[in-house]
Amino acid sequence: MTANPIRVAVNGYGNLGRGVEKSILAAPDMELVAIFTRRDPASLDTLSGKAVSIDDMADYQGKVDVCVNCGGSATDLIEQGPAVTQYFNTVDSFDTHAKIPEHYATMDSVAKDNDHIAVISSGWDPGLFSINRVIAEAVLPEGSTYTFWGRGVSQGHSDAIRRIPGVKDAKQYTVPVQEVVDRIQAGERPELTTRDKHLRECYVVAEEGADKAAIEEAIVTMENYFADYDTTVTFISEEELLRDHSAMPHGGQVIRAGETSANTNQVYGFTLALDSNPEFTGSMLVATARAAARLAAAGERGCRTVLDIAPALYVPIDADELRAHFL
Amino acid sequence: MTANPIRVAVNGYGNLGRGVEKSILAAPDMELVAIFTRRDPASLDTLSGKAVSIDDMADYQGKVDVCVNCGGSATDLIEQGPAVTQYFNTVDSFDTHAKIPEHYATMDSVAKDNDHIAVISSGWDPGLFSINRVIAEAVLPEGSTYTFWGRGVSQGHSDAIRRIPGVKDAKQYTVPVQEVVDRIQAGERPELTTRDKHLRECYVVAEEGADKAAIEEAIVTMENYFADYDTTVTFISEEELLRDHSAMPHGGQVIRAGETSANTNQVYGFTLALDSNPEFTGSMLVATARAAARLAAAGERGCRTVLDIAPALYVPIDADELRAHFL
Repeated sequence: MTANPIRVAVNGYGNLGRGVEKSILAAPDMELVAIFTRRDPASLDTLSGKAVSIDDMADYQGKVDVCVNCGGSATDLIEQGPAVTQYFNTVDSFDTHAKIPEHYATMDSVAKDNDHIAVISSGWDPGLFSINRVIAEAVLPEGSTYTFWGRGVSQGHSDAIRRIPGVKDAKQYTVPVQEVVDRIQAGERPELTTRDKHLRECYVVAEEGADKAAIEEAIVTMENYFADYDTTVTFISEEELLRDHSAMPHGGQVIRAGETSANTNQVYGFTLALDSNPEFTGSMLVATARAAARLAAAGERGCRTVLDIAPALYVPIDADELRAHFL
Repeated sequence: MTANPIRVAVNGYGNLGRGVEKSILAAPDMELVAIFTRRDPASLDTLSGKAVSIDDMADYQGKVDVCVNCGGSATDLIEQGPAVTQYFNTVDSFDTHAKIPEHYATMDSVAKDNDHIAVISSGWDPGLFSINRVIAEAVLPEGSTYTFWGRGVSQGHSDAIRRIPGVKDAKQYTVPVQEVVDRIQAGERPELTTRDKHLRECYVVAEEGADKAAIEEAIVTMENYFADYDTTVTFISEEELLRDHSAMPHGGQVIRAGETSANTNQVYGFTLALDSNPEFTGSMLVATARAAARLAAAGERGCRTVLDIAPALYVPIDADELRAHFL
């Protein structure tokens, strides 16, 4: 632990909050001050024993350098963000792409009014993928960028299946179409529809006596979720679901295929293959919390995204050592 | 062209300088002001017709926002860097990793004394690979980072072969060992020797009557260049060399295999596959020149590297649009 550790709080203790906690505990330059929860703090089985009631948050003003908001959905973050940024510098993983400008405007205003930094939309997409989409665009202005997700579990699509009558439980995997990925990596720049890019694999546990054909039909025709994709539905037992589909792997890639002059192809690729989506996202949020604390200490105020953050700010290694050993 | 374009100069007109020129001419927010050359400007077949004598450089003070130093070697850049930074903000691709701290110290001092920004060691390695080594370290503190180069032409190794008596011409390709790359991408973290990571393929044109066995022996035993590698030597005709080995492809990858908790593997990968190394490097230098101009306009002074530059600074797209469409 360094002499003046960055004092970090976690707001929310689901899968993501637990990933953030693990990452803070492993950081050499951070101290975990509190995990804020809406539940009874005594009921939480944390690694750190730092759970406190969210009602006591105001008492932590001046004792926390950055709070990582780990709301369970983008809706949570829209409420948590402004509320918590009144008290602390904050970081979140807001991932409803279409609503980012609105969330940014709110957070920028609250952060400035309260003399704080708020970094929104960190994680891997948005987050690391965003960094790569922008740098790839800069270095290959003539080209096309493709983002693929998976193979990985989509929580939103799994939830959508669970809402169908007769479904007891389900997991949905988003799977990139490898043949298309291969073409782009070879420098092609195809026009692609949604169906061309990803498959959706569904593993479903049906209730006793449920009409499986009706469930399958309800899945594959579901607007916004499955209708535009080639979707496979496999019925399995509850035991199989628990045994084979309890992990939360994910990943994906950003590829930009471009050219710097006629027929001179240049391919830029960024890939993640993750055994645990919440642990990796949590780890990126903690690196972002470090950057937020440094921006705040340097006198910056307002809302930022990963696009505004220099790489060196994420890492607990000083500039001389970075230049000597990482550049 | 925007109302107030960034005025850019190029210093040196080899393969890299020509790549930089192409990239500036394609940039919507830049104006190419001059290409400084030690040769007779009239003798240069430039795309832009902007060649001028390096002796006239001082006359361009106040007319150039950033000068991209395209010296043919790291030795050139050690001299060019401080000299040119007296007049302008500068960008270079200094790539002798061991000497970066020293080059940084010199450039920081000259840049501060002359009220300029100097960004050193941009390109892809150092450059994009450095950005990824640092971010990967930040997000996966427990792990191992591997850098592979190739398949691509190494100019330094090709030159070393050409210095052997009896060799008329040669091209050397650095080739990553795919089996090792595959293991790391699967999450393994092997300890690797130099020989484990890369092969070296040499294509050699021998002089009439030269002793090919002696040439091959001289190559494969050459200290610092080939002795530590598995090296293949193939003798070909001058026509074959010109026909099959005139391009300058390169690329490589940075992979970090880490874990966020016991047996939870997370693999981070960055890959480039380049038809033209100098054009891609030139393009990254031009994006870096944009960032340098913006840092200077914001009042920053001194030496910087890509580790100090936020992604948004590289790209001619405003912050609102980046958040709406790239994040």
